[in-house]
Amino acid sequence: MKIKEIGEKQLIKKIAEIVAPAALPAGFLGIGDDAAVNSVAQGNVLVTTKDMLVEGIHFIRNMAAPADLGYKSLAVNFSDIAAMAAKPRYIFVALALPKDIDLEYVLELYRGMVQLADRYGAVICGGDTVGTPGPLVISVTVQGEANQDELFLRSGASPGDLLCTTGPLGASAAGLFLLTENICCDEEMRRQALQAHVRPVPRLDEAAFLSASGLVTAAMDLSDGLLKDVTEICEQSACGVLLRENQIPVHPAAVCIAQEKGENPLDLALSGGEDYELLLTIKPEGFQCLSDDYLTRFGQPLCLLGEMTASGGIVMVNMDGKRESLSFKGFRHF
Amino acid sequence: MKIKEIGEKQLIKKIAEIVAPAALPAGFLGIGDDAAVNSVAQGNVLVTTKDMLVEGIHFIRNMAAPADLGYKSLAVNFSDIAAMAAKPRYIFVALALPKDIDLEYVLELYRGMVQLADRYGAVICGGDTVGTPGPLVISVTVQGEANQDELFLRSGASPGDLLCTTGPLGASAAGLFLLTENICCDEEMRRQALQAHVRPVPRLDEAAFLSASGLVTAAMDLSDGLLKDVTEICEQSACGVLLRENQIPVHPAAVCIAQEKGENPLDLALSGGEDYELLLTIKPEGFQCLSDDYLTRFGQPLCLLGEMTASGGIVMVNMDGKRESLSFKGFRHF
Repeated sequence: MKIKEIGEKQLIKKIAEIVAPAALPAGFLGIGDDAAVNSVAQGNVLVTTKDMLVEGIHFIRNMAAPADLGYKSLAVNFSDIAAMAAKPRYIFVALALPKDIDLEYVLELYRGMVQLADRYGAVICGGDTVGTPGPLVISVTVQGEANQDELFLRSGASPGDLLCTTGPLGASAAGLFLLTENICCDEEMRRQALQAHVRPVPRLDEAAFLSASGLVTAAMDLSDGLLKDVTEICEQSACGVLLRENQIPVHPAAVCIAQEKGENPLDLALSGGEDYELLLTIKPEGFQCLSDDYLTRFGQPLCLLGEMTASGGIVMVNMDGKRESLSFKGFRHF
Repeated sequence: MKIKEIGEKQLIKKIAEIVAPAALPAGFLGIGDDAAVNSVAQGNVLVTTKDMLVEGIHFIRNMAAPADLGYKSLAVNFSDIAAMAAKPRYIFVALALPKDIDLEYVLELYRGMVQLADRYGAVICGGDTVGTPGPLVISVTVQGEANQDELFLRSGASPGDLLCTTGPLGASAAGLFLLTENICCDEEMRRQALQAHVRPVPRLDEAAFLSASGLVTAAMDLSDGLLKDVTEICEQSACGVLLRENQIPVHPAAVCIAQEKGENPLDLALSGGEDYELLLTIKPEGFQCLSDDYLTRFGQPLCLLGEMTASGGIVMVNMDGKRESLSFKGFRHF
C-alpha cells in the first residue's frame, strides 16, 4: 500500500504502534499532542544532536534495506551522543516522504530505529511526516543526558595527551566499496565490512566506561574520516598532533578489500569516513591501565595513533621514520 | 556566492556568527561540538516539537523572502510550544540545501529565525547542513520548558467547557490567495492577510497568560484548519463539540478577500489552515472574566465558538438555527 492511500493520520497511528515504549516513564508524553513532554534527571544536562540524511547523498534507496537505513539514521546520532559521554533518551524523527513510497517501507524504517533505540533504553516520542516531490529525507533529533562534569568535549586536549580510537578504521568505507562494486574477498571480512557500513555500533557503552575513568581530555566521533576529524580536536584544543603511520589501526577488512581493489588501505583508515568509532585524547599516565581494562571489557584494545603536540598542524611519521605534514581529505557535503 | 563554493565548514562558521546569543547561559554549549549542551530548570519538564517544511509542498522558494521563510519555519514550531503552555528555549535547524543555492539565501533564512527567536529569548544552538539533489528542506526542532502542572494537553476537555480561539480565523488562507492570484482588496486587509500568512505570531504570550488562569482544560494550535483540529481535541478528550455558525470568528481580511474571489469566507475560517491561533477549551464559570482580562491585555477578545458536548462528533448550529453534522476538511499531506 502506498502512503498516499493511507493518509497522514493512519500513518502516524501505525508508526505510534511500532515506537510505543513498553513502559512509559512518569510524566512522559509521546506522539499525539502538539509536542512531546519528557524530563531530565535533576543535576543532569541535556545533550542534543540533529543529523539529516538525504536519498542520493547519504544513501541509495534500493541499495539499503529500510530497517538498516532506519537503524543507521539513528546510529549516527547516537554516535554523537556517545562522543559527548551522554546517554540517549528521547528521539524525534521527521520524514519527507515521496508520494509513491510504500507504507511498509516507512514502517520498516521505524522498526530499524526501534531495534537500536531499545538496546539503549531510548524512546521515539515525536516528529513529523510530510510529503515531498523530491528524494526521501530523514531528519533525526536525539536528546541525551549527562552529568556535566563527565561530558566529553572537543576542546580539552593538551600537548602530550595520547590520541586513540575505540577500534580500527576503514571498514565502513570498505563496506561501501562492496555495495557499489563487484569485489572478491574473504567471507568473514565481507561480513565485517558490510556490518561496519550498514549497522555501525554507536560507542555508547565504551564512552560510559571511558568517561568513568576521568582520563579522557577530549573526544569526538569519527564520521568524516580521521584526518578531517582530528583537525577539529586540534583546532578546538589549540594543539597539533603527531600520528605514526605504523600505528594507524587499519581494519583487516579494509586491508583485504582495498588491496583487492588496488587502493591503499591506509587511505581508507585516514579518509574513508563513517567509522563511528570515537577519537579520544587521554592523559598519558593512566593510558596503559585504561587500555588493559578496556580490552578486558570490550575484547578490543584502545588503538593508540600518536600524541597531541604544542605546534599546530597534523604531522605523520611514516614507515621510514620521516615526518610529513598532512592536510585533511574528508567528505565534502556541497 | 553559491554554497558549493564556500564549503560546509565556512558555511557553519557564518551561520554561527548569525545565531550566536548575546549572552551565553551557564553550562551552555552551542554550535561546534558533537552535540549541544543545555539545561532545564529544576522541576520543569522538557517540551519538544519538530516540524519539517519542504519546498514545493509548504512553500514556493521564489514566492517567499528567505527571512520570512526562516521566521515562519520557526514560528510553526513555536506555535506548538505555545499550545503546550511552554516557553521556547533551544532551537536546532537541519537544512537540505540544493547545490546551486546562494549563501546569502541561507544566511537570510537564519536571520529570519533569529528575529523571532530573540523576541522570545530562545537560541539556535545546533543542527545540520547537508546537500540535496532535490528541493530545499527545513527541519526545525524546538525544545521548550514548562511547569508540568501548567501544561496544556489536548485530552483535558469535558462536556460543558467552552471552546474558543485566541483570535479570528481565515486570514492566513486569504493571504495565500493574495500570493497566488491577482485579487483586488483594501490595503489594510491585504496587509493583515499577508502578515498572517507570512509572519504568523506564535501565541506564546497569550498561552502564558491563559495558563496562569488555571481555567484552560485543553488546547492545541490551529495549523490544519478548525474542523480538522477540533476533531483532535474531541477524540483525545472523548467529547463532541457544538459550534455556532454565527459565532465562528471569521477574520475581516478573510471576509473581504473571499468575497472578492467568490468564495465563502466561512470555509476559510473552518478549513483554511495555518491560522496558528490557539484552540482552547475553558471552564465556563470563569470564562467571561478571563476574556475581559484577555481583551485588556491583548487588545483582542477571546473568540467563543461553541461548547464541548458529551455526544461524539462535530455539530454546527447554522444561521437558521438548524443543526448539521460536519466532518473535517483539512490539509492532506500525502
